[in-house]
Amino acid sequence: MSKKIAVFRKEHFNAAHRIFNPSWDDKKNAAVFGKCSNPNYHGHNYELIVKVVGEPDPETGYVIDMKVLSVITREEVLEKFDHKNLNLDTTHFSDLIPTAENIVTVIYELLRKRIDPKLELQVRLYETERNFVEYPA
Amino acid sequence: MSKKIAVFRKEHFNAAHRIFNPSWDDKKNAAVFGKCSNPNYHGHNYELIVKVVGEPDPETGYVIDMKVLSVITREEVLEKFDHKNLNLDTTHFSDLIPTAENIVTVIYELLRKRIDPKLELQVRLYETERNFVEYPA
Amino acid sequence: MSKKIAVFRKEHFNAAHRIFNPSWDDKKNAAVFGKCSNPNYHGHNYELIVKVVGEPDPETGYVIDMKVLSVITREEVLEKFDHKNLNLDTTHFSDLIPTAENIVTVIYELLRKRIDPKLELQVRLYETERNFVEYPA
Amino acid sequence: MSKKIAVFRKEHFNAAHRIFNPSWDDKKNAAVFGKCSNPNYHGHNYELIVKVVGEPDPETGYVIDMKVLSVITREEVLEKFDHKNLNLDTTHFSDLIPTAENIVTVIYELLRKRIDPKLELQVRLYETERNFVEYPA
Amino acid sequence: MSKKIAVFRKEHFNAAHRIFNPSWDDKKNAAVFGKCSNPNYHGHNYELIVKVVGEPDPETGYVIDMKVLSVITREEVLEKFDHKNLNLDTTHFSDLIPTAENIVTVIYELLRKRIDPKLELQVRLYETERNFVEYPA
Amino acid sequence: MSKKIAVFRKEHFNAAHRIFNPSWDDKKNAAVFGKCSNPNYHGHNYELIVKVVGEPDPETGYVIDMKVLSVITREEVLEKFDHKNLNLDTTHFSDLIPTAENIVTVIYELLRKRIDPKLELQVRLYETERNFVEYPA
Repeated sequence: MSKKIAVFRKEHFNAAHRIFNPSWDDKKNAAVFGKCSNPNYHGHNYELIVKVVGEPDPETGYVIDMKVLSVITREEVLEKFDHKNLNLDTTHFSDLIPTAENIVTVIYELLRKRIDPKLELQVRLYETERNFVEYPA
Repeated sequence: MSKKIAVFRKEHFNAAHRIFNPSWDDKKNAAVFGKCSNPNYHGHNYELIVKVVGEPDPETGYVIDMKVLSVITREEVLEKFDHKNLNLDTTHFSDLIPTAENIVTVIYELLRKRIDPKLELQVRLYETERNFVEYPA
Repeated sequence: MSKKIAVFRKEHFNAAHRIFNPSWDDKKNAAVFGKCSNPNYHGHNYELIVKVVGEPDPETGYVIDMKVLSVITREEVLEKFDHKNLNLDTTHFSDLIPTAENIVTVIYELLRKRIDPKLELQVRLYETERNFVEYPA
Repeated sequence: MSKKIAVFRKEHFNAAHRIFNPSWDDKKNAAVFGKCSNPNYHGHNYELIVKVVGEPDPETGYVIDMKVLSVITREEVLEKFDHKNLNLDTTHFSDLIPTAENIVTVIYELLRKRIDPKLELQVRLYETERNFVEYPA
Repeated sequence: MSKKIAVFRKEHFNAAHRIFNPSWDDKKNAAVFGKCSNPNYHGHNYELIVKVVGEPDPETGYVIDMKVLSVITREEVLEKFDHKNLNLDTTHFSDLIPTAENIVTVIYELLRKRIDPKLELQVRLYETERNFVEYPA
Repeated sequence: MSKKIAVFRKEHFNAAHRIFNPSWDDKKNAAVFGKCSNPNYHGHNYELIVKVVGEPDPETGYVIDMKVLSVITREEVLEKFDHKNLNLDTTHFSDLIPTAENIVTVIYELLRKRIDPKLELQVRLYETERNFVEYPA
């Protein structure tokens, strides 16, 4: 059996967003997205769980140092998104609707380039306690 | 890598049940199931997490609209089981012991026929915070 | 300022119940209590928080030994109500509707006679994560 | 001893806001409020706990019907604030900074006029899991 | 009615401790405190909730700036106790048994001298999810 | 599709530990492990989730009796580690750094020999709410 272990680090950020497809008119956006498309935005306390899989280093007993994983997540995700308007204050969602599905994919790509390629990565994002997503599935 | 994303929706319902095998006498039921077999029933706040896996629609950014997933879950699960006695008030457990394992399988089948076949489905059911099950494993 | 400290111990039990006023007919019970009055019962994972207030003993540093408080709660509450039908399996609700308000009052009285009179007592009962009660207020 | 019992009902809503004092310039707002003053807003999943204190009705065993309390909270709070921008989409914060302290006071006043005057009312509002407020103290 | 509002800030720290009365022999310590008196220590993830009560400042809408309250708590509590052995690494418990009751009193005194005297202070400390204390009661 | 169902049982224990590599000097330990290497130890409330996968027994509806799974976990894990110093009071970490990664692997091996080989096993261990691990990945 594989000796691989998964380690998980939880972080959070608060952001505003609006679910809005710019190629549709306001009426269609309202019909499809309902109150989530409110023109003046609404917001969430996003909870983020970063999962990294690999074999522990025999000298440290760590798959990855959680402190390092926390720093990477802060630099790549929290500094970009915390207390921001995802539609207006970031470049990542200028051409991409900030649904939970698209946010989690963007976060995965931001973290992937900072995590050692020999380690597997998966990201879970809670938009609310009742609605959450995971990538890759 | 697959572009598949998992989306999760959490719902809950309250129900009474009794763990009881009708082909056994009361003594054997008590010996095997203990206080869970109390003839006058006991109950739980069941927490349900429905997981749906697929690729997001490019127009909406959704794998499945969470509002739609919530409505399907209410119609197929909550309207049938919420504030009910699983042994007496439903047809699903007339020939099936309402263990968490069997309840989660029944819920999976009820939801499966309402979810687009191209989407994968998995269901997690918490009987208490400390005891929970998932199907398929 | 008072040197009084509050200590809290959390326990839980699972039970079935039905909200039903026997002096009313079924129609009025259904009209007032809705699905909570389902004749075949429903159930909950009740979470109980027992609060005891007093001055810590200088020799032990304890207001009350949490292990002792846990044992008292098990003997007075869990052994009577866990995995039971509150309407049928207990004497406490033969003349009292098992609403959260009435259950918490009964639990308070059961614990009050076991806790040193010089200590104050308050009980909080969660019927669900969203509905809970506290006595005395 | 008083026979008063407290009942609690938890609800939630998602909203955007900005902490901003219009009598100050942007520089002072940024100095005092930091990233909470981001001009394009940020947001939260607000959790609301409404506490009502009184004596239970002997016929129903209820201090207040939780279903009624939930409806009042939805009508007075959720319909006004859920998926809204508190600064732009409501009249309540046109002259009032939407800090958690001010939001909880506004919610208290909205609910107070709908709850029977013989019942006491207190409101707790979670802005995040780590920051929350209660009124009256 | 008072215009006072309570604000709460949650922090956490991890520490080792041993419940031990040095004026007793090991046998009596073991008899009274059980496994909590293990000579080689055990530990907890302590969750701390600091409650401050006062009237909001009309210019900021804040009773106390949560960021400031967080900094004070870090300086007075986390820097002293986080990842420490309460019995060996601190001066506060050299003559005081580190029960939850005594820890919460020490934390209260550390914070009290840093919080404006016109504001009321109360501290809640979770030793585990099931055992917690509050001071003053 | 497989008829396999996963069942989960959550338990917890409190322990002290120190992250320390005995082949390094104190300076290198401090540089690599930071405050986690404090010589006098610190501690955690460890939360453990044991996952067992298999097909339910047609007579009981159980994959494994949760009461049995709880007893096995208590005997193999809690009796060995609860209220202990992992470095000093156990043999399992005399030659192994008690990182979360190594603790979860040790717990897996302890449970594996007690669980029927036809059942799959996976263990998740929370060191804090924000840091957790899973084995096998």
